[in-house]
Order: sequence, then structure tokens, then C-alpha cells
Amino acid sequence: MSRFTDWLAERAAAREEAGLTRRLFASDTAGPMIDLAGNDYLGLSRHPRVVAGAVAAAERYGAGAGASRLVTGTLTVHERLERDLAAFTGFPTALVLSTGYHANLAAVSALADAETLIVSDAHVHASMIDACRLSRGQVAVAPHNDVAAVERFLAARTQPRAIVLVETIYSVLGDAAPVEELAAVCARHDAVLVADEAHALGVCGSGGRGLLHEAGLSGQDHVVATLTLSKSLGAQGGAVLATAAVRDHLVNTARPFIYDTGLAPAAAGAASVALRVVREEPERVERVRAVARALAKGGGVPEADGAVLAVAMPGPREAVAAVAAAAEQGVRIGCFRPPSTPDGISRLRLTAHAHLGDEELEHAVRVLEGLVG
Amino acid sequence: MSRFTDWLAERAAAREEAGLTRRLFASDTAGPMIDLAGNDYLGLSRHPRVVAGAVAAAERYGAGAGASRLVTGTLTVHERLERDLAAFTGFPTALVLSTGYHANLAAVSALADAETLIVSDAHVHASMIDACRLSRGQVAVAPHNDVAAVERFLAARTQPRAIVLVETIYSVLGDAAPVEELAAVCARHDAVLVADEAHALGVCGSGGRGLLHEAGLSGQDHVVATLTLSKSLGAQGGAVLATAAVRDHLVNTARPFIYDTGLAPAAAGAASVALRVVREEPERVERVRAVARALAKGGGVPEADGAVLAVAMPGPREAVAAVAAAAEQGVRIGCFRPPSTPDGISRLRLTAHAHLGDEELEHAVRVLEGLVG
Repeated sequence: MSRFTDWLAERAAAREEAGLTRRLFASDTAGPMIDLAGNDYLGLSRHPRVVAGAVAAAERYGAGAGASRLVTGTLTVHERLERDLAAFTGFPTALVLSTGYHANLAAVSALADAETLIVSDAHVHASMIDACRLSRGQVAVAPHNDVAAVERFLAARTQPRAIVLVETIYSVLGDAAPVEELAAVCARHDAVLVADEAHALGVCGSGGRGLLHEAGLSGQDHVVATLTLSKSLGAQGGAVLATAAVRDHLVNTARPFIYDTGLAPAAAGAASVALRVVREEPERVERVRAVARALAKGGGVPEADGAVLAVAMPGPREAVAAVAAAAEQGVRIGCFRPPSTPDGISRLRLTAHAHLGDEELEHAVRVLEGLVG
Repeated sequence: MSRFTDWLAERAAAREEAGLTRRLFASDTAGPMIDLAGNDYLGLSRHPRVVAGAVAAAERYGAGAGASRLVTGTLTVHERLERDLAAFTGFPTALVLSTGYHANLAAVSALADAETLIVSDAHVHASMIDACRLSRGQVAVAPHNDVAAVERFLAARTQPRAIVLVETIYSVLGDAAPVEELAAVCARHDAVLVADEAHALGVCGSGGRGLLHEAGLSGQDHVVATLTLSKSLGAQGGAVLATAAVRDHLVNTARPFIYDTGLAPAAAGAASVALRVVREEPERVERVRAVARALAKGGGVPEADGAVLAVAMPGPREAVAAVAAAAEQGVRIGCFRPPSTPDGISRLRLTAHAHLGDEELEHAVRVLEGLVG
């Protein structure tokens, strides 16, 4: 045994002891379940038109992009998707990356240099935290949704530039960021708001256009959005939405964009069609919100700002037991345990899905009532 | 104008002045070209069986995985691909991630904690450099392919653990790492070799199984491989190949794995079929090496260890001019300019492709002779 294998074994034993071991399972082998766990909020991943969009792009452009977007990996299917995303959200330009994680790494690391203060909300996603580590900027962590704290950091800064990192809908607790106030504070202090719309796109704002669009902030010079194509759009990939100057800067300096193979054509094609479905069938967006309201009632928690609900549990083992109990009743729910929760509290995580039928929804609500009652 | 928009404009002007502005173009609109630029080494991205693999997976599993691999985003198509990759390369297990970038970020950040020394070759890929920044380990950069320097760092370390980062075929210069010597040094000093096979898979070693397999290092406790599905396999995604203990550790601790949506089914399905094609048609691997030898002759450079050839140019403008001259003659070549080169030297980058016909290859060689002659 080497010190390395010893260390792996010690870490595994500690996880097991704490009830925190994570194991993978193939979700398609578990039989039909009512899904309250995944992020395919609008059910578009298996929508026939969206799948056909993936198929058509693979057949036309191939199974992969074959190179970095800057070499030969930019294809018409990427350009079309970028136009579609910009038009839908109201931003001047979009830049598509191969994951939402890449989108956050790229945006933050390219926009924050050593002369930039990064003010990050305490609850931002792992990809934004990693992005802070990649950047050369100094990082200040503001308490969750505390606009006054953000303003104090910005006012007291010694750096010429600053960016503020938030999620418009937070991925674990499901609450919304006060984007209007944050954007106003950024404008007053010559800072840029970088807001991740991953859980808001397709769910929040008029027709699912997101919370920045709803607040009239899309396309402003001091506002940058990131998003993912793998949640409400049912595909894979991410994007940064911003002015043309920001996009050019990313194309030239963002390492997670430059040194990465372009997004697979099938994912880009699927996302373009999914955007079209969202535009043409806004009732899907209405439905996911109605399902979220019903689930909140069943789970005994306040109504959510988006499609994500969090139910606090006494500990990680209780959370895992609740997940198992729901599964026995045909309902798949998720749970977040440390270190995946911002405050160390284990939680059930419920996500609303537009494609749940009324009977499925009623059953799911009954199961939730049984778990928390 | 804010200080932010001023800064963007200054940076853009500086790039323009230095001849370093990068612009995107849709490569499919440029008309038919002989491709010596992309990384689809075996031409599998457009292989009918590989495309059919993408289509079948999208139709069966949907356009996206819908959630993190740890929630509901693991599908049978991922498990099959992981078995296929492990069997092909000779490692006990594989863990599939959504990009090769994610694979390096995940492997390095999860395996190196604050008590780990990271010894990195000076020429490793941007994703490994970013991975070093994400990790908590102390980083020492060894001169390129300098095994003695690696050994000195390992011998002098104060940390209990150490990992050594290399590419088996380097992405810019195209040369090979001395993996046997490096693995022996790692074994002597209780360190782990983390080797990126991105440009070796499908190209080097018996039947394209990579340089670790060729050296008999696959599956050893102190050897971890990373690779990408987006080059010779023509799809998208990445993987970490290692012992089951390392895989479990990554599943539980690697943030770029845990907090990322699973790889799109189409990409996983395509990569599985591509692996089968490589196994069944080893002549593709022979052909890409023969094409690489012919291109080396045309470009006036030594034979490559893999499929990547680098031709030094006087400066970035000359490199860009050579790319344009080749394009006028129907040949697409790439160039690497600072900051994408490890030593600041601008280079033409030529990649060999197994699917070039004899006449195309002859024309390409003539064009290269004209450029460098």
C-alpha cells in the first residue's frame, strides 16, 4: 500500500462513517418513476421535436465538433443557437460553451483580472466558486442575498474594477436573487453583475425568458448572464449572454472556451429546437410554476420563486431515508447533503416538471405530505 | 463609458495591435477543404455508424441527461461507455465526464489536497493548468520532459503525497512524454502519475490504445489516465481511467463531476460506437500514422510521435498568412499563437487524419512544401 492508496481508503471510510457516501446508479433501469429530482423542468429532453433537432444536427454536422470553436469547431448550428439565445433573452450576443460549468468558468475568469474585486454571494454554484479560484481577482463573499453587504464591498474596494456573482434562482434553496437592486448597486459603483440564469431560463420571467429579462436588465453594459442548455432546454451545454465587446473578450481570453472542443452538434441542434418549443408553447412555463406551487403545499414549504423546492431534514441519513421512502412509492426526489449545501443542512430537493399529469402530481403531493407530515 | 467598458476596449485594441485577435467562423460554410487542423484524427465524427450511435442514443434516452450523474443523470449509455473505455485501455474503471476539460479539472482537483505536491510538466494543457489552480496542492513546474527534474521535486518534497501531470502526446508540439521513466520515478517516490491521453487515444499504442497501455502501465495503482471523447472518437466528453478506489473518490469529491449535468446521451452513444470501430478497423490507426509521416516530410519537420505536427514560424502574422495561403489552395491548417504556445513561438499546427485519400494527401504535402520551402 502506498500513502496514496492509504489516503483514498481513509477518505472512503470517513465518508461511510458519516453517511455521506455517494453512489451512481443508472436511472433508466429503476422502472417508471415520477421525477421530482432532475432539472429537465419542461420535459423537453424527450420531446419528439427536440430529439429530432438532435438527430438532424448529428446527421448533418457529425457526432462531434472535432476541434476548438476557434480552430474548425464552430459550425452553423452553433451560430444559429447563439442568435436564438440572444433573441430569446434580449441580449445582444450569446457565446455557446460545452457545459454550463464552462460558461461560468469562462465568464468569471475572463472578466476578473488581478485588478478586479469579485463579490460573490455565499450561495453561488460550485462552478462560480471554482471560477473565482481560476481568476486572478480578489474574492469577497457576501452573505446570501444581502444587497447592502454587496454595496459595502463595492464602495470600499481599492481595485478599479469589480464584478458581482449571483444566481438568479439559487440551485439548492431555490430562492431568487434581488436582481434589480443588485444591478442598481453595480451601476452606482461601476461594477458588473454576472448572473447565472441556469435555473430561471424556461421557468421564470415572461415566457421563461429569465429574471434579467423580466427586470429589463438584458443587454445592459454592466450585466452579463450565464445559463445552461441542460436544464429547461433538455440538451447539454452553456452560454454567456452579453454585449459584443464582452463576447469578443471571452473569445480571445477565456481559457475554458478557447481550449475546449466545441459543443456537439446534436446538443446545439436540440437546444435551438427546445427554445422554439418554449416560444411556441408558453403554457409549459405556466404549468411548471403551477406544479411548483402544488409541490410546495405538499412539502409544507413556502412557494418557490422558480421550480426548485428545498425541504430541510434533521441530517443526511434522514434525507437519504426519505428519498428511499419516496422511491418505494414511485416518486424520485433528490437530496443535498454536505458538502453540497451552502449551510451544512441536509435537504430534500424537489423540482417541478411541466410534463407531470394531474394524477401524477396528486400522487406526488400525497407522497410528500406523508414524508414531511 | 464605465471603467469596465474602457478596459474591454483597451484590451481589444492591444490584441489588434499585436496581430493576436481571434475571430470565430463557421467552418462548414467555407466550402470543401482538406482538413489538417481539427482533432477528428480518425474521421469518426462523420462515420455513418458513429452518427447512428448518436441518433440511437438520443432517440432512446433523450437529448440531454437532465441532471447531475449523481442525481438522475447516469444512464445505461454512460455505464456501457465506461465499461467500453476501461476494457479498451486496460484500466479497471472509467468515469465519464461532459468534456475532456472537466476530466482534467476533476482528476487533479480531487486527487491533490493541501498535503499534495503537484509536479506539472511545463507544456501541459490549459485544462491541467486550470486544474492546478483549482486544487489545494502546491504546484512545481518541471521543464518539459525533464524526468530528472521531476525526480528532484519528488525527492525534495515535504508533503506526504505527490502527483505528476503530463500529456502522453502534447497538444501543441505533438511530442510524447517518457511515460515509462516517469512512472518509474513516481513508483520510487510514492507519487501518482496523471497522464492525459487526449491526443494519443486512437492514434498511439497497439490498436490506438494509448501510450500507457503500450508501456504496460494501464491499471497500476499509481497511474491515472484522462482522455477526451471529442478527438479520435469524434464525439464530446472526457473520462478518467483509474482504479475503483480512485473512481469512487472522484464520484464523491470531484466538483466538476458532481455539480455538472451528465454527458448528453448522443455523445456517449457515439463514443461507444466509435470505440467499436477503432477495435474492428485497426487499419485506421495505421493510416493516421502514415499520413502523419507524409505530412512531416512535406512540412520539413521530424516525424511525430502521434498525429500532431508543429512547424515554427517567425511570428503570429506570418503564421496567420500561411494559414490563409493554404486555405486558398484548399487546405485548412491551424496555427497556435501566444498565449496558446508553451514557449511564445507561433507555430503552424498540422494534424493527420486517417480519412485523407491518397490524392488529397499528395496535394496537402505539395501545399506544405510550398509554405515552408
